[in-house]
Amino acid sequence: MTTERVATVVGDLVNRINDAIAKHEVTYDEYRAAVNYLIRVGEAGEWPLFTDVFFEHTVEQLNQGEGGTIMGPYYVPDAPWLERPYVLPMREDEKGDPLILSGTVRSTSGDPIPGAVLDMWQADADTNYSNIQQEPPPFNLRGKMTTDENGEFEVRTIVPPYYHLPRGGPMEELLKAAGWHDFRPGHLHFIVSADGYTPLTTQLYFEGDRYLDSDVASAVKPELILTLREHDSPEEMDARGMTKPFFTTSHEFRLKPAG
Amino acid sequence: MTTERVATVVGDLVNRINDAIAKHEVTYDEYRAAVNYLIRVGEAGEWPLFTDVFFEHTVEQLNQGEGGTIMGPYYVPDAPWLERPYVLPMREDEKGDPLILSGTVRSTSGDPIPGAVLDMWQADADTNYSNIQQEPPPFNLRGKMTTDENGEFEVRTIVPPYYHLPRGGPMEELLKAAGWHDFRPGHLHFIVSADGYTPLTTQLYFEGDRYLDSDVASAVKPELILTLREHDSPEEMDARGMTKPFFTTSHEFRLKPAG
Repeated sequence: MTTERVATVVGDLVNRINDAIAKHEVTYDEYRAAVNYLIRVGEAGEWPLFTDVFFEHTVEQLNQGEGGTIMGPYYVPDAPWLERPYVLPMREDEKGDPLILSGTVRSTSGDPIPGAVLDMWQADADTNYSNIQQEPPPFNLRGKMTTDENGEFEVRTIVPPYYHLPRGGPMEELLKAAGWHDFRPGHLHFIVSADGYTPLTTQLYFEGDRYLDSDVASAVKPELILTLREHDSPEEMDARGMTKPFFTTSHEFRLKPAG
Repeated sequence: MTTERVATVVGDLVNRINDAIAKHEVTYDEYRAAVNYLIRVGEAGEWPLFTDVFFEHTVEQLNQGEGGTIMGPYYVPDAPWLERPYVLPMREDEKGDPLILSGTVRSTSGDPIPGAVLDMWQADADTNYSNIQQEPPPFNLRGKMTTDENGEFEVRTIVPPYYHLPRGGPMEELLKAAGWHDFRPGHLHFIVSADGYTPLTTQLYFEGDRYLDSDVASAVKPELILTLREHDSPEEMDARGMTKPFFTTSHEFRLKPAG
């Protein structure tokens, strides 16, 4: 970043915040409470959460646009490479409705991209992320896979529930104080990448989720909302080797050529 | 704070910051650098410094206005009560030009206020604050005193030098990156209080200081700039019991009736 860039952007941010302080006639007590709040966000390790909830969607929209959305604070690199048929790592008795997601990775001009990498992660049915919250084993519901020679993939996982942001810290405190809810609709996370293309960070949501229209992180886009089809006949379950009803859905990821 | 107040102010701040992100087309790299910066401000314990430098002047102007200015991050309660003739606690060989500050505390309608309390603090000649930086002994150049039956006081100290903000942490890093200097003009700090009046937090500056017009904390006001008179004749030095040339100046503090 050049000196001029830092001065322009930081200067403008400082001015805008001062304008807001003046407009709302912020008192000393409110100012001290705000400074104390900033300190506590750091002490609780919540800066990535705070910024990703309030601001990442704007950065994302500028830099990815259609088909992408925010990464959020729970990505962990080095998830295990999976082998076909792809099943996200899960406990033997993993709770939640089984989900089979199939799809294709294509270039923006429509060509299928063989060997594209999907780095996928999600919350479990109790709304916990492995490697972040205590409960799930390391890398539970996290994995990497590739598309086949037709640019296609299929992976089995569970339908992620809508969930609330971590509670007990400054994020919950602020949202409560403002009277805002702390829910995100259920979603699957992906970073999709391939040689010669710009990586795409995105999430997939599900029709009917009660928080699609009021995601606390402002990260839902219409093209990312999938329709779940339920399969509950014994024949369908047998054919898939499932012991309980399951859902299917599909999505097409589109990657922009790099550069 | 009511829920509505928090939602209005926080909502507006979040919107303004998002507008700035969009206007300046902030990249992911810049965003990640900014999040990392926020984390490091907390780790370095610099939130009070950061906020007081960039924002306290706006809060101050709204809530105190004429005659006041920012408190800054270096106030420490429980400074020692001094006895007349007032001399701020200092080392035997305290560096710096001796200064005798005299003055009056009056109500905004002009009545002198006997028994008003002046809680005073300042940097030493090496730009260090006691109880903050390592070097000066505890409560060096910090003390409390009262006005006499005429609302007057006189205190001996040293002329505070202009100084730069603490270096080696995120504050220095940001100011350098933006190409902004990190200096404040030399100043004496006060909280002036009296029964029945709103306490006044302020600072006094000195004519000729090179940073009066570009204070990094935007906290200088014309009515707070004092003129120093030098006294270097043996007679004047004798009369004051001084062994070297000294300066005098004076100021009138005005307190608003409470409520």
